[in-house]
Amino acid sequence: MIRVGIYGAAGYTGLELMRILRGHPAVSIELATAQSHAGARLSDVFPVPWDVRLVAETDADPGVVDAVFCCLPAGAAMAQAARARAAGAKVIDLSADFRLRDPAAYRQWYGLEHNAPHLLSQAVYGLPEVHAAEIRGAGLVANPGCYPTSVLLGLYPLLKAGLIEHWPIIADCKSGVSGAGRTPNLKTHFVEANENLSPYNIGRSHRHLPEMEQEIERLGGAARPLIFAPHLVPVSRGMLSTLYVAVPDTFAPATLHKLFAETYCGAPFVWVLPEGQLASMAHAVRTNRCVLSLTLAGPGQLIVCSAIDNLVKGAAGQAVQNFNLMFGLDESAGLVTP
Amino acid sequence: MIRVGIYGAAGYTGLELMRILRGHPAVSIELATAQSHAGARLSDVFPVPWDVRLVAETDADPGVVDAVFCCLPAGAAMAQAARARAAGAKVIDLSADFRLRDPAAYRQWYGLEHNAPHLLSQAVYGLPEVHAAEIRGAGLVANPGCYPTSVLLGLYPLLKAGLIEHWPIIADCKSGVSGAGRTPNLKTHFVEANENLSPYNIGRSHRHLPEMEQEIERLGGAARPLIFAPHLVPVSRGMLSTLYVAVPDTFAPATLHKLFAETYCGAPFVWVLPEGQLASMAHAVRTNRCVLSLTLAGPGQLIVCSAIDNLVKGAAGQAVQNFNLMFGLDESAGLVTP
Amino acid sequence: MIRVGIYGAAGYTGLELMRILRGHPAVSIELATAQSHAGARLSDVFPVPWDVRLVAETDADPGVVDAVFCCLPAGAAMAQAARARAAGAKVIDLSADFRLRDPAAYRQWYGLEHNAPHLLSQAVYGLPEVHAAEIRGAGLVANPGCYPTSVLLGLYPLLKAGLIEHWPIIADCKSGVSGAGRTPNLKTHFVEANENLSPYNIGRSHRHLPEMEQEIERLGGAARPLIFAPHLVPVSRGMLSTLYVAVPDTFAPATLHKLFAETYCGAPFVWVLPEGQLASMAHAVRTNRCVLSLTLAGPGQLIVCSAIDNLVKGAAGQAVQNFNLMFGLDESAGLVTP
Amino acid sequence: MIRVGIYGAAGYTGLELMRILRGHPAVSIELATAQSHAGARLSDVFPVPWDVRLVAETDADPGVVDAVFCCLPAGAAMAQAARARAAGAKVIDLSADFRLRDPAAYRQWYGLEHNAPHLLSQAVYGLPEVHAAEIRGAGLVANPGCYPTSVLLGLYPLLKAGLIEHWPIIADCKSGVSGAGRTPNLKTHFVEANENLSPYNIGRSHRHLPEMEQEIERLGGAARPLIFAPHLVPVSRGMLSTLYVAVPDTFAPATLHKLFAETYCGAPFVWVLPEGQLASMAHAVRTNRCVLSLTLAGPGQLIVCSAIDNLVKGAAGQAVQNFNLMFGLDESAGLVTP
Repeated sequence: MIRVGIYGAAGYTGLELMRILRGHPAVSIELATAQSHAGARLSDVFPVPWDVRLVAETDADPGVVDAVFCCLPAGAAMAQAARARAAGAKVIDLSADFRLRDPAAYRQWYGLEHNAPHLLSQAVYGLPEVHAAEIRGAGLVANPGCYPTSVLLGLYPLLKAGLIEHWPIIADCKSGVSGAGRTPNLKTHFVEANENLSPYNIGRSHRHLPEMEQEIERLGGAARPLIFAPHLVPVSRGMLSTLYVAVPDTFAPATLHKLFAETYCGAPFVWVLPEGQLASMAHAVRTNRCVLSLTLAGPGQLIVCSAIDNLVKGAAGQAVQNFNLMFGLDESAGLVTP
Repeated sequence: MIRVGIYGAAGYTGLELMRILRGHPAVSIELATAQSHAGARLSDVFPVPWDVRLVAETDADPGVVDAVFCCLPAGAAMAQAARARAAGAKVIDLSADFRLRDPAAYRQWYGLEHNAPHLLSQAVYGLPEVHAAEIRGAGLVANPGCYPTSVLLGLYPLLKAGLIEHWPIIADCKSGVSGAGRTPNLKTHFVEANENLSPYNIGRSHRHLPEMEQEIERLGGAARPLIFAPHLVPVSRGMLSTLYVAVPDTFAPATLHKLFAETYCGAPFVWVLPEGQLASMAHAVRTNRCVLSLTLAGPGQLIVCSAIDNLVKGAAGQAVQNFNLMFGLDESAGLVTP
Repeated sequence: MIRVGIYGAAGYTGLELMRILRGHPAVSIELATAQSHAGARLSDVFPVPWDVRLVAETDADPGVVDAVFCCLPAGAAMAQAARARAAGAKVIDLSADFRLRDPAAYRQWYGLEHNAPHLLSQAVYGLPEVHAAEIRGAGLVANPGCYPTSVLLGLYPLLKAGLIEHWPIIADCKSGVSGAGRTPNLKTHFVEANENLSPYNIGRSHRHLPEMEQEIERLGGAARPLIFAPHLVPVSRGMLSTLYVAVPDTFAPATLHKLFAETYCGAPFVWVLPEGQLASMAHAVRTNRCVLSLTLAGPGQLIVCSAIDNLVKGAAGQAVQNFNLMFGLDESAGLVTP
Repeated sequence: MIRVGIYGAAGYTGLELMRILRGHPAVSIELATAQSHAGARLSDVFPVPWDVRLVAETDADPGVVDAVFCCLPAGAAMAQAARARAAGAKVIDLSADFRLRDPAAYRQWYGLEHNAPHLLSQAVYGLPEVHAAEIRGAGLVANPGCYPTSVLLGLYPLLKAGLIEHWPIIADCKSGVSGAGRTPNLKTHFVEANENLSPYNIGRSHRHLPEMEQEIERLGGAARPLIFAPHLVPVSRGMLSTLYVAVPDTFAPATLHKLFAETYCGAPFVWVLPEGQLASMAHAVRTNRCVLSLTLAGPGQLIVCSAIDNLVKGAAGQAVQNFNLMFGLDESAGLVTP
């Protein structure tokens, strides 16, 4: 059994990780931390019966585990990741601390000095459908953000094939409220979010933007801007990204479907819907799937709909998928919930 | 025009009062306070276009208004109510500070010493369907809580006629989330409340219990306990109380309907549904109505369903109804939204 | 008092019209039809206490009213509109039957032969912020669809000023479920729509597309395609259109705000938010407002967010606004709910 | 592997069974029927990727399976259950057809003549926490309704110990919308159910009432009436029953907790919460758990809150629990989702 620790177990992502890893056939959970709930049981924090004792991060010994899943806030994660690496554990970091390769970009977007820059060059961007080989050999994986996961998987076949004709790409994204975390604020108050739909941080202000542009550029998309408009939707979980992309006028729907199907033919968690069907949140929620649909609005006017569960493929599930690759397990182990 | 002030305008009840009073034909709003938003405009606090400047309670001069609607938290209201009364304004207090007649009970349930006990004897309990005559002459009205409004209106015809055979009465009550106020906490977090229904403070711990028992006793119900079980429901607004009451075995449905219809025949805001129909939140939401239905589960086993909007008949609407009576206006003025 | 009839009073739009018109100071409702509920009372169909008797369309005499609001389905409306016009009543038609000027387009999109083509040339497109003068003199107004209202009001200042640089415009639109009507089907089943968000009829298949393209062309946008992607959102009412438009690179945010503010300076129901704020459904729901926000994602990359209530500004409220203009009343009469 | 068939796979219960059984280590699904979708794939009916072909019930051969899960409507189930028994398969029937032991009661409540009365005496009521021994030897199990499951598990320790002092018991029950099935109607329309909470079939009209009274009587409760008030709640799944029961005045909370804990000490799916905690839907949703909490409102005034997932412990999960017992498997096999 591979011994793992979950850092930041009192948030929604931590809970989801706990849920998945408790059912994972090759894992034993040895450690669960929550700084502000140290000493409590998980059943004091969530309506679950699991008898798990929470400890403070600062009291945790990463030496007792083979892998650390780090669900701490940006800024807090890098120190714990460094400690865990120093103790010999592999790290899957679900924060943003190792996603941006350039410490200057990190400083610009997160307002913090990166205090483990030596780890940045080791960190592999954990999008398994794109970087599986690198992930297999990695000691530190930066688990992608939820928006980047849904957007990049929707664009990857086109970027790889060099088919995007004009720029910018437009990503109109809709996210469930759990994406905003469990700390209460006015935006996540039931009465404010319910019966409402609101754009937020549109334009160039959302922190997932530089992560997406960095990866698009690496995939050959050149350093062109993405127009990214996130919206908050009154559902607990789920994410739908509607992507507007200019492709060559001559491409027929069947050709595009073939491209996507071939690109993802070995990917257990990408489901390209048949022509005529549209991806919705319901296709993906509570699974590790990314569900894609392709629609041509006119010649060359492609609309890709990309649906994931923000807490699973957008966070905890993808983290376990990366973990499986890092430890030489079946990529799907623990994730094949029907 | 009657000049009014709204104290505590940055909460859900304050907003609803603002909405109603802006459309009231005999009112001009002269003052709106919000201690923690002093200096802001209402449009900075809510998604509304009204150009209203908020001031601090402590800076407000109640001398410029004829009436104060006080939507402050328990404990904060009594001081402002006393100031307003001293300045000559009539007060409709929407907090709990003047609902319990006995300062000892107030201390027990609210953990505070009452600092305006001289006003307690002046305060009239503002349930217009029961106490209209007293309200007309009052300078200070204690606006009932939302649960008490829905429960008392569902029981009043039975209490008045002395028909309740056995005790206890059971009140299984369901409330929308706005009843918990606008200050964010885990209970009102969208992800916690959504797709959930949870009992809270059941047994003898909810602060609306002594208020209900006090009024039931005044209405002739003797000092018997009420079993009260509030539940939080994933809707923004609305309240349904399902009341289980033992009545004489010999009463036919038609007799009970007649009793309710007659009791409320002059009441513009009570709607007794015809036999065979059941009151739901949808009958009452966004109106000042209390909607009642009567069902006999068996001989003597009466189920009264009582629906209100917790923010309207359960708070702001009823406050305006009391205001209308206090100022000799038509009881329905400003409230006849279709 | 102007005597009006509501045809199709048993749907959500009909109910909303009833709600607004009952509070309208210059209106008396003389007629309410519902073919499949003929003989019933409105309170049998909806949880409302209004004592309104429904009659069959085919039994209704439009001669007794001065104006008919027609909320019938496409195809059924044109015959009733023709009857009403023949009887001398003015008509505000909320169906699609008089929106497309070209009977061939109507046939193509609705699969029906237009049987009142003589009225098409009389029909005025009822977007008051654009066509007020024509509406004032009209006997027949085609009330715009909900999507076209939100999209066209978001584009109008740009189209009028000739500022749209590149095509296509992208309209990513999100609608509440009431837009799908009250007839139950799987798509509107609570369990299917709840906790879900789904695109539908994207590409070139939604019937509001030709209506939008027709109007964009009339406003000088040339006959270029619009990319239109509607999505169903788990809210009862509300619509948000996120519009992506290429404008000149040199335009500053303040210039664009000024353009929008000036274009709509006399429009009582358009609210252009200050810079830095974003329009959400909550800004518009249960009002006749269209709320607009402007964000530049980069030079020339404008994102307009346009929020309305699909049943009010997107249907019943706008119909009353048109009615007010047609009868020489204040444009806001009956609509100034706070 | 035990070969199973799912009859009625196109409803919510059928889908949930499919989900559970696909993950069951000892099961192979050989047959899935849906009369009105015969020939379709499951992925045409639900947003799931499973490649399952649906056949008509009338074309299905129960001879190819060891067990049939029957999710057909009342009236349709009995014929298929009889066919399956005749072919040698064991049957877990999720309809109401074998729950009432008396064919006359079935006729009274369901308006149908029972056409397999010879099977009624064989049928075991499938509440494993009460009837495990009988279920182990059964060929035909009548899976309880969702309301009866939540109510009976909340009362069983009290009934078994003979502690219920006065009658009637009151069961105020709240159910998610999936309990109403997938066939669209006005009651399950999103706009009708959303932002609403409505009682329905209260009094003595809900079909789960005779089932509950039959079982209460068998458990020693004598033939006394239960007051049962079901309510529809705007959540997709989940059920909370709030039960008001008179117990001896002298019982302390700890005594009651001990009684419940001991009664359910070997039951893997009953979770009795510690004193001071209250059961909510969130404790049970998407699990096979029944979660119970006990609160004394006053001496002898017990409130039991009982939460289940109506589709899991209230239907598909309990059916698999019964199946496990019938085939000598671990009671929890396939059900230990974390």
